[in-house]
Amino acid sequence: MPAETVLVIGGGPAGLAAARGVADVGTRAILVEQRDRLGGTPISAGYSGFTPFFKDAEAIMNEMAAGVLKHPNATVHLNTTIRSRSGSAGDFTVTLSHAGGGEETVTAGAIIIATGFDHFDPGKASQMYGYYEFPDVITLVDAERMLKAKNVVRPSTGRPPERVCFVQCVGSRDRRIGNEYCSKVCCGVATKEAIEIKEMLPNCRVTIFYIDMRMYGFWENQLYWKAQEQFKINFIRGVITEILPKGDRLMIKGEDTTMGRPVEVPMDMVILSVGMVPSKGTIEVGRLLGVLQEKHGFIETPGTPMDTVSTSVPGIYVAGAAAGPKDLEDSVSMAGLAAMKAIAAARQAPAPVG
Amino acid sequence: MPAETVLVIGGGPAGLAAARGVADVGTRAILVEQRDRLGGTPISAGYSGFTPFFKDAEAIMNEMAAGVLKHPNATVHLNTTIRSRSGSAGDFTVTLSHAGGGEETVTAGAIIIATGFDHFDPGKASQMYGYYEFPDVITLVDAERMLKAKNVVRPSTGRPPERVCFVQCVGSRDRRIGNEYCSKVCCGVATKEAIEIKEMLPNCRVTIFYIDMRMYGFWENQLYWKAQEQFKINFIRGVITEILPKGDRLMIKGEDTTMGRPVEVPMDMVILSVGMVPSKGTIEVGRLLGVLQEKHGFIETPGTPMDTVSTSVPGIYVAGAAAGPKDLEDSVSMAGLAAMKAIAAARQAPAPVG
Repeated sequence: MPAETVLVIGGGPAGLAAARGVADVGTRAILVEQRDRLGGTPISAGYSGFTPFFKDAEAIMNEMAAGVLKHPNATVHLNTTIRSRSGSAGDFTVTLSHAGGGEETVTAGAIIIATGFDHFDPGKASQMYGYYEFPDVITLVDAERMLKAKNVVRPSTGRPPERVCFVQCVGSRDRRIGNEYCSKVCCGVATKEAIEIKEMLPNCRVTIFYIDMRMYGFWENQLYWKAQEQFKINFIRGVITEILPKGDRLMIKGEDTTMGRPVEVPMDMVILSVGMVPSKGTIEVGRLLGVLQEKHGFIETPGTPMDTVSTSVPGIYVAGAAAGPKDLEDSVSMAGLAAMKAIAAARQAPAPVG
Repeated sequence: MPAETVLVIGGGPAGLAAARGVADVGTRAILVEQRDRLGGTPISAGYSGFTPFFKDAEAIMNEMAAGVLKHPNATVHLNTTIRSRSGSAGDFTVTLSHAGGGEETVTAGAIIIATGFDHFDPGKASQMYGYYEFPDVITLVDAERMLKAKNVVRPSTGRPPERVCFVQCVGSRDRRIGNEYCSKVCCGVATKEAIEIKEMLPNCRVTIFYIDMRMYGFWENQLYWKAQEQFKINFIRGVITEILPKGDRLMIKGEDTTMGRPVEVPMDMVILSVGMVPSKGTIEVGRLLGVLQEKHGFIETPGTPMDTVSTSVPGIYVAGAAAGPKDLEDSVSMAGLAAMKAIAAARQAPAPVG
């Protein structure tokens, strides 16, 4: 086992990629995960296919997890959280708390926070969208689970929907609720899900209501053109202000801002494109480690844009959506940079005595 | 000097970050740059401030360059290109060609391609926008140079403009010219420049014509809200189809797609938000190294989204805009991941004999 150690907190895409990177380079990685299984949000939330290529999320996460679990330089603690840290770069001491009871102290030259995000709870905007009132109003995450089960049905009837729409920016770009940032991935994820729905239900009419379609970079051709031309998904720039029951359907009301006219359309199912908020773990771990957090609770990266992973504390790094809205590519790339910086920091550890 | 070596091709943000990372972890980095100076496109194109925080681009690039130049584990070859490679992961041989004459052979366990992008040449769309006809039609890059010189003036008169507009998606999202992808950064860069113009010329009216404002993630609050509220920059969703001279001004014509009415407005200066195309170096180096390139010439990364840097050839990685439209955060994060994977690959080199 190598002498230098990097502690990675969180076993999702960013944490697994970071731990794997650390271990591959020959440094010891200790990965701590609060859940009883590795894989992070893609597993716990039941994601179907990853954006933009529809690859099986569970298979990919299992493969990443296996790569860490069987790595001779990596140790994984499931059902474990952190309780406190002391020390500084090159020589941290962190107390781990095991859910079954018992604490343990580990030393590490550097720490990587990879504690991820939570999906915005549309209950916060429920007066508007009725997520908790109407069974056929669901979220992007609920839709992932349906797609994974290959069973896209209206919750109220158990039958396939004939008309589905997505409402973008639920919990994002919204100052009323304090989330003025854009969650970055929801345009891509909604479009991916829309395509998957059309593949399963070719006769279903699928519409996406958006403010701006943020299909940056290659997502434009990988998803957006494809969705419009090959799958005839209907993109309408507009604002949906109200969702109301009408008979056994939902009536959505708002404005088509391109046509400059009101929208009032019946739907069988409405999918709210909920954004990212910092996970409870991110808020808690940030506080316990003593790193600065921006006002929503995401971990601050003061060196942005030229350093995406260093936090306010030397030797502590962040990767993935713990640092704000990130897509999978961001998360694994950041994991690489965080691993590299963590290894360099850990190597500056005081030489072991004896 | 450590035994394992990683060859980094390109001395811009991604290449410098990758070389620094490799060297910091204790592996030898050889950086090859075709120009006579490190710093990449931000230096050669004369960027002013970086998006989204307006930090001095030249100062940042000089600092990154110094960090590599003075690093004991790094060797820099300026005015140098690559001519050929042989061997495979763990044991590549690459022939370097020095501009002053002479060739040199180096061995490396892994290679990182960081050869970046070029700005789209609006001559390709000149029948529409008149970049080569009208002196007051400039590009995002020309505007960077003006901002850097703190001299924002109409080229035709040398006097400050009273009305400026940006036209987004020039050379991007445009299938007529074969660039159907989105260039990712232009919405952010244009908004950053618009703010800088307003800071220098508070009475100048600045408008941005766009299809979708792709201010993903925190750019939304860091730039977009700020531009609208604090700097009163005017964002109009619309398509500009024609730019024509009218008196000593330019008349821009198109459609405001939100209001559903024609736009016909005089401007003193029009800034074309040109997108990214693969650099000549990227196309050439990709070919010489024998890695797959996507149809525009960017380097393919078959493992996307869970592996953003591996190319089609084991042991050869890519970082930054050589792999497609990337922002600075993408570039430095990818550099970290590429460095880490390259080090691991280089460590699998056959043990030196004797």
